[in-house]
Amino acid sequence: MKLKVYSDRMSQPSRAVIIFCKVNGIEFEEVVLSLAKRKHLSPEFKEINPMGKVPAIVDGRFKLFESHAILIYLSSAFPGIPDHWYPNDLSKRAKIHSVLDWHHSNLRAGAAGYVLNTVLAPSLGLPLNPRAAAEAEKLLSKSLSKLETFWLKGSNSKFLLSSNQPSIADLSLVCELMQLQVLEEKDRLRLLGPYEKVQKWIENTRNVTMPHFDEVHEILFKAKERIQKQRETGTGSKQGLRSKM
Amino acid sequence: MKLKVYSDRMSQPSRAVIIFCKVNGIEFEEVVLSLAKRKHLSPEFKEINPMGKVPAIVDGRFKLFESHAILIYLSSAFPGIPDHWYPNDLSKRAKIHSVLDWHHSNLRAGAAGYVLNTVLAPSLGLPLNPRAAAEAEKLLSKSLSKLETFWLKGSNSKFLLSSNQPSIADLSLVCELMQLQVLEEKDRLRLLGPYEKVQKWIENTRNVTMPHFDEVHEILFKAKERIQKQRETGTGSKQGLRSKM
Repeated sequence: MKLKVYSDRMSQPSRAVIIFCKVNGIEFEEVVLSLAKRKHLSPEFKEINPMGKVPAIVDGRFKLFESHAILIYLSSAFPGIPDHWYPNDLSKRAKIHSVLDWHHSNLRAGAAGYVLNTVLAPSLGLPLNPRAAAEAEKLLSKSLSKLETFWLKGSNSKFLLSSNQPSIADLSLVCELMQLQVLEEKDRLRLLGPYEKVQKWIENTRNVTMPHFDEVHEILFKAKERIQKQRETGTGSKQGLRSKM
Repeated sequence: MKLKVYSDRMSQPSRAVIIFCKVNGIEFEEVVLSLAKRKHLSPEFKEINPMGKVPAIVDGRFKLFESHAILIYLSSAFPGIPDHWYPNDLSKRAKIHSVLDWHHSNLRAGAAGYVLNTVLAPSLGLPLNPRAAAEAEKLLSKSLSKLETFWLKGSNSKFLLSSNQPSIADLSLVCELMQLQVLEEKDRLRLLGPYEKVQKWIENTRNVTMPHFDEVHEILFKAKERIQKQRETGTGSKQGLRSKM
């Protein structure tokens, strides 16, 4: 039975899992669960993931949720996955766990909180919350600074934990930052502009996962265009991005 | 060179790492970094963990932070650690990653946010924030409910992922919940009272890690007494728990 990946490409951890499968030739069925249509809250999906979040996978009779756990499982359980994605070496593996753990309460909380409270909230029936946006921006900027000055500190490091090959941590964190695409351009540039290494690293990760990276992000680029048009024409955002990132 | 564990027992992830070492007979030097005295922000410690958080470890020349990553590393790198803490079986291991990932944005965010904003903030020079406390309480209650109805759903399950043996996930999450001890008793009972399986699981995890569990939590029980006395005598909390949990 083929691996099933329950996902919505508007969700950044869903994109990371889908790109990983495609890059590594893992055969899978992409089961699309529209977050905008609240399919992730259906009783059927709660049988797969009682937390009602995407992505989740079913591999035979084995069910799993949480994207980091899924990426680790896929790296380990499927044959022929190159070692660099999730190295066997204990120290390298420990560093991957460390950056993925850090991600949860820092980069992810900052980026998702900022995008939600500056752009996406109305399309989810929520009010924009400037106070929450300001708090999330602080956390996002602090996290970007740590990426630039610590995780990417090596002068020749193309990736977080290796000079020349990506790991699941690169894929996860870069997919997270890609959601900044839906921000107003001035906001995106203000946030990312100061961090040259971060920008290069996003590009490096994109390059080694092409053409899948762009193909899987297409939905995001289309949303960006749609939201931009709404900004220019002044139409409400309720008709806009009816999804949750 | 002996393993060094940089920690403050007032921090719940520090306690999890220290208990793990003691239960498994790992020789280590406990380097106490008082959070109350802001030692975690010193330039010396930033060399160990640039994020300025405890716990962190140094094993030979290898430095690592983030408690989940540390628990996985210790389980894997030190000889003779019983398999149940972090099983070699890929599916069991994946479930441990899943619950640990879930912990970050749910149980941990809820418990730490609630305790900070109802008890600890003044001792850290911060105002108590009822709005943040209310938000954290919602997340904490939702997380406790998920623990009770999903993670601990098996009728005979003594632990999260096994009927009879604990994993690093049990240790991490139980240490998190132990911080509720410093709450007013009525609040602690209101929050934990509805969840019988959760209460039993905390006790089961305590029992299999005794006497180390109680010994490492002694600092917390003393803080509880001190704070309770302050409540009774009406003295300010600034002289109270001068530490960060």
